[in-house]
Amino acid sequence: MGGMRRVAFAELQERIERVLVGLGLGAERAALGARLIAETDRDGVKTHGVARLPRFAQWVRDGAIVADAEPRCVAKFGAIERWVGGRGPGNLAAYAAMQRAMEIAKEQGLGCVALADTSHWMRAGTYGWQAAEAGFAAMCWTNTMPNLPPWGAKSAALGNNPLVVAIPNATQPIVLDMAMSQFSYGTLASYRARGETLPVPGGYDEEGLLTTNAAAIERTQRALPIGFWKGSGLSFVLDVLAAMLSGGIATHQLPADPAKEVGVSQVLLAIAPESLSTMEEMNRVVRGAIEGVHGATPIEAGRPARYPGESTLRVREESLRVGVAVEDAAWDAFVQLEVLRSCADGGS
Amino acid sequence: MGGMRRVAFAELQERIERVLVGLGLGAERAALGARLIAETDRDGVKTHGVARLPRFAQWVRDGAIVADAEPRCVAKFGAIERWVGGRGPGNLAAYAAMQRAMEIAKEQGLGCVALADTSHWMRAGTYGWQAAEAGFAAMCWTNTMPNLPPWGAKSAALGNNPLVVAIPNATQPIVLDMAMSQFSYGTLASYRARGETLPVPGGYDEEGLLTTNAAAIERTQRALPIGFWKGSGLSFVLDVLAAMLSGGIATHQLPADPAKEVGVSQVLLAIAPESLSTMEEMNRVVRGAIEGVHGATPIEAGRPARYPGESTLRVREESLRVGVAVEDAAWDAFVQLEVLRSCADGGS
Repeated sequence: MGGMRRVAFAELQERIERVLVGLGLGAERAALGARLIAETDRDGVKTHGVARLPRFAQWVRDGAIVADAEPRCVAKFGAIERWVGGRGPGNLAAYAAMQRAMEIAKEQGLGCVALADTSHWMRAGTYGWQAAEAGFAAMCWTNTMPNLPPWGAKSAALGNNPLVVAIPNATQPIVLDMAMSQFSYGTLASYRARGETLPVPGGYDEEGLLTTNAAAIERTQRALPIGFWKGSGLSFVLDVLAAMLSGGIATHQLPADPAKEVGVSQVLLAIAPESLSTMEEMNRVVRGAIEGVHGATPIEAGRPARYPGESTLRVREESLRVGVAVEDAAWDAFVQLEVLRSCADGGS
Repeated sequence: MGGMRRVAFAELQERIERVLVGLGLGAERAALGARLIAETDRDGVKTHGVARLPRFAQWVRDGAIVADAEPRCVAKFGAIERWVGGRGPGNLAAYAAMQRAMEIAKEQGLGCVALADTSHWMRAGTYGWQAAEAGFAAMCWTNTMPNLPPWGAKSAALGNNPLVVAIPNATQPIVLDMAMSQFSYGTLASYRARGETLPVPGGYDEEGLLTTNAAAIERTQRALPIGFWKGSGLSFVLDVLAAMLSGGIATHQLPADPAKEVGVSQVLLAIAPESLSTMEEMNRVVRGAIEGVHGATPIEAGRPARYPGESTLRVREESLRVGVAVEDAAWDAFVQLEVLRSCADGGS
């Protein structure tokens, strides 16, 4: 495992922006895309920020992602709209869809945009933070290519379909960002590389037994859905709903190849709790629930149970103070992208 | 363990109805309540049908549930409404709330009713089937008393907050009905009584280790959230959202005693996919997704993976053909209720 460096947030964002412009995104779109990616690393979600840029760049160069495609509304009925992404940058499309869902919610109490034919939205939690920081509750999810066996099967037929639930709050939004597999393949690879066993079983070994050995799960490709049959069922319904509402494609129609995972379907639902509640009332609810969790007897003395998103603000504050932590391997790959862009420009 | 008997569906429904009338429900409400309870047993969800009637009756006699309280709307904004249940029968309140959510969705594409101060809704899936059979997609959930330790803690501070996701379909609705704990305490008790080990770990033993021993989990009261930290987070956000949207109370405000679990908060969200899709398109999406899951390589040859709700229609058909299966213990307790009622009436 390599080391890690700290990069000032503003520098990180600016340098990503230049790479995105080099890939053909217009100025405003590159600025937004760069902010969302830099914020992902800023919040400590290392797998889905700068580390994913090389794959994004490859998709753009392959034509799988259309750099200047903008999502657009193709049908609407009351508080629900159907959009198509035209295989543009997935984070920009999802961001626009959530913005629109919030606009509708402001008028109607709740609003939903179902987005078809889009590309990987990178960090799922992005759209939860987007909503919560604007004062909206939200639920959103995406389908993915088949990468998870349904309960009772050995071969992948479900996606790990991340689900996000966000709740606004004066001091600390709550954002749950969870995939349907107990561990992502990225996380399994990290455990294997570090030679560590998983904290809980994460899938099956070659003998069909539950295991905490990450390498064994990588070999069998039999990752575990959260809650066994329960996560299997939840993954299935999220996929069907996303495809049905968006008019897009479902997991079984996506190529089972991470290099070709384009065309996914998403649902972005915003709720305006302020349409019914005062902000004080809302904050009181959140504060009480947090105190409830913090008041539970911890397994390890002095380490209270946490709620979703609790550590994010701490990591964020640290990143802004001492620089955003980026792993050397991810940084080296990013610098390669800068070099490529610079060569394409004839130097800059 | 006792045996099981078969009772004709019509007889079951009629006899439950008479008991509910005896408890003070008006004729129409007793008829609906009886149908929902009988349908629960008809669909094979034995823990939440007739078997729960004695507890319901006790709550009514205690005054914890107000037999004639009807839920009512107290605030609305666009497609979202806030209702209060007035501690009436929870299944009738949730049913009325979902009916209203569907009415709104018919006008607005989606509709939400957040319901405060209600009582146990019995079978969560009831409201998913209600929506799906009427052609609506739905998500709904309830909070519960604290009965699940948050990840990292040993004492209960979260609810097992069942979540339902329903999708309409011409031949077979899809209904996911899942609590946030891997196994309910009712299920743990059944395994213990049968002397069977759990199929997967369900909680912690006295040494703080994951176990498949149901009795050990009953002793520690440390049931496992699905997906460990993930289900813990999901339970938390569902609770906060339910309390915030409904203006009702959260898990930490409910008494940690199943005999006093009244006053819960619920969210019932309906979506009208037909506002954007044709029925043919919707059926095609569902059919494709089902074929995807059925096409996965099964662990046991000849036993394909299943999707949520798949077995329900088979059980339902069998119940209607040969009678609804009711466990003797549940039946005996039900007959006791009939006797009580009959005595109160001076015989009937």
